[in-house]
Amino acid sequence: MSDNKVQIFDTTLRDGEQVPGCKLNTQQKLVIAERLDLLGVDVIEAGFPVSSPGDFTSVNEIAKIVKNATVCGLTRAVENDIKVAAEALKHAVKPRIHTGIGTSESHIKYKFNSTQDKVIERGIAAVKYAKSFVEDVEFYAEDAGRTDNEFLARVCEAMIKAGATVLNIPDTTGYCLPEEYGAKIKYLKENVKGIDNVVISCHCHNDLGLATANSIVGAINGARQIECTINGIGERAGNTALEEVVMIMKQHPYLNLNTDINSKLLYDTSLMVSESMGMMVQPNKAIVGANAFAHSSGIHQDGVIKNRETYEIIDPVEVGVTESAIVLTARSGRAALAYRAKKIGYELTKLQLDEVYKEFLTYADRKKEVVDEDIHQIMKTVQVEAAVA
Amino acid sequence: MSDNKVQIFDTTLRDGEQVPGCKLNTQQKLVIAERLDLLGVDVIEAGFPVSSPGDFTSVNEIAKIVKNATVCGLTRAVENDIKVAAEALKHAVKPRIHTGIGTSESHIKYKFNSTQDKVIERGIAAVKYAKSFVEDVEFYAEDAGRTDNEFLARVCEAMIKAGATVLNIPDTTGYCLPEEYGAKIKYLKENVKGIDNVVISCHCHNDLGLATANSIVGAINGARQIECTINGIGERAGNTALEEVVMIMKQHPYLNLNTDINSKLLYDTSLMVSESMGMMVQPNKAIVGANAFAHSSGIHQDGVIKNRETYEIIDPVEVGVTESAIVLTARSGRAALAYRAKKIGYELTKLQLDEVYKEFLTYADRKKEVVDEDIHQIMKTVQVEAAVA
Repeated sequence: MSDNKVQIFDTTLRDGEQVPGCKLNTQQKLVIAERLDLLGVDVIEAGFPVSSPGDFTSVNEIAKIVKNATVCGLTRAVENDIKVAAEALKHAVKPRIHTGIGTSESHIKYKFNSTQDKVIERGIAAVKYAKSFVEDVEFYAEDAGRTDNEFLARVCEAMIKAGATVLNIPDTTGYCLPEEYGAKIKYLKENVKGIDNVVISCHCHNDLGLATANSIVGAINGARQIECTINGIGERAGNTALEEVVMIMKQHPYLNLNTDINSKLLYDTSLMVSESMGMMVQPNKAIVGANAFAHSSGIHQDGVIKNRETYEIIDPVEVGVTESAIVLTARSGRAALAYRAKKIGYELTKLQLDEVYKEFLTYADRKKEVVDEDIHQIMKTVQVEAAVA
Repeated sequence: MSDNKVQIFDTTLRDGEQVPGCKLNTQQKLVIAERLDLLGVDVIEAGFPVSSPGDFTSVNEIAKIVKNATVCGLTRAVENDIKVAAEALKHAVKPRIHTGIGTSESHIKYKFNSTQDKVIERGIAAVKYAKSFVEDVEFYAEDAGRTDNEFLARVCEAMIKAGATVLNIPDTTGYCLPEEYGAKIKYLKENVKGIDNVVISCHCHNDLGLATANSIVGAINGARQIECTINGIGERAGNTALEEVVMIMKQHPYLNLNTDINSKLLYDTSLMVSESMGMMVQPNKAIVGANAFAHSSGIHQDGVIKNRETYEIIDPVEVGVTESAIVLTARSGRAALAYRAKKIGYELTKLQLDEVYKEFLTYADRKKEVVDEDIHQIMKTVQVEAAVA
């Protein structure tokens, strides 16, 4: 692995799936796991095996089919969790156990009613036990974002000695500012003995809208793994969005950071996850939102733009957005409908769009996908005399 | 104005509204403008008066009703634009003209086929002409994010001499990394004569998911105005989200930056804009997404959390999220439905949720809002024998 490669650790199927009302079944998870492997992620966190028999089965089946990526299972710093995870991962070509414990004052005091020393002891025991099953053991210091740096360094050093190969520094509550999170990674890089022999991982949450920035600043300061999800899904305001960090590194070559992701599969993968989980992506979502490239699609300011790069830095083709990639379904917004309608000759006023959209939703509820022919039919039904665009 | 106050410049009605298929009429704009005034924004950018008679009318009417905020109109560095904007703003208590020109090599070369000196001359003329109508003139250096810092400093100094009161440094393409954008603001703060007598403004786009981080880093480095929109709407991947920057400053008192925003109105304002523009907010959107506080609402990990602050840093009440604030409509996701259903006693499996959601959409298409009574009816219709939660 080159020094400049940032590993992409996808946790769509674990942290991403911790969303109210959106449980995936094993079959759906297998389809997504195969796609993630094709996309080129380095690690797939497949689930939390001890949490339920269904989750165990999913991790077990995913471990069987994934060809290239490391398959990872989450555990607490609890013997049985680790044993069950090892069992779930036994068919993986490259298995990893991800264990850990809360290290912030808040977690130690309220969650465990414990002390710093005891937490370190539990961490060491967990890493050593995991190590008896697999070579690749990642340790998470939960709520590292709010953990005192000096204590965090002690924890990291102890886990490296115990055999951890990856140290995950999660900003569990999404609280850190970029400067602060970057300084934390830098501090560890400079103060932990043996840190150069392991990989530092960023795991950021988006409660304040800073997950992407924090992860990138982490990588700039020495982290070489980013934990993220497709579309940035996950509990509360979600995790770092995979598509955003990947494209930032790709668009800023001077950072000298790269990934193995095939960016041309990003848009399709986004659609697959969004549909499979019923978690819609807002039109103004970076990289994969329906409007992310609307500007260049000729809706807006055509005639003004003399050069694509004047207003846009990513070529839509680079992330797999082509004309045919924009699919209309019951979850599509009015913008997407107006865009498609215009493409086939209908220039709608605001009032007309209201009417057409209402009819569109009736169509979309009956059909999985609304195609151009349906749009012509809708126009007839509502008798909109749209101007020819 | 205290040195630590960051002015909130809301451009929901101008840059935010530059979204395909989502034009608002004047009446809708007036309702939003009144709400923004109540929310406590310092500046409302009401539109681009010369762009259309409708936009002129909107700016003109908004100028009449806004009581507290400055009302601002956008122009290019073109005499007629400025004259028309001044006319549109004539009834405003505190009018501002926002004029400017592209300063990056790409803009100067491809958009204007001009030179650096000529661009500065046009800027000076625009600021002086605007100044003949109003005292408060903001200058934007379009594509400042890709403009060489030394040239940008020259531009800023010239505009201050010409009478500009605010200097807007837009990252027009959403290209900058936080460190880079922060360094740009710092460079201007340290190298432009007279900079301490004017306000530096951040105007960031979210193409790479970094708008919020860039704006905050800008403020940390000396900017005292942030241009943003409700829900982060805007062309392509949108603008900086108002709710995110406001809550970051509120949650990090040690930054010693504050705003006049009444955060308790954030959630309601988000809903109003989302509904009015037909631009849905994804469930995992920071601060205002349906799941942003789902964790604390008892869906997830209830029993595990012994203390709210273990996993969550913002009290939902602080942003106006209360039990009754979560409204089910045709645009609600499965998560929101599952949440509400559980609240009134139905614990749904994945398969049951599929069925119930389908029926829910039929209901929601007929009714503006789906209430608890409807949910009971839906359960009867689909004959779901849900477990009692």
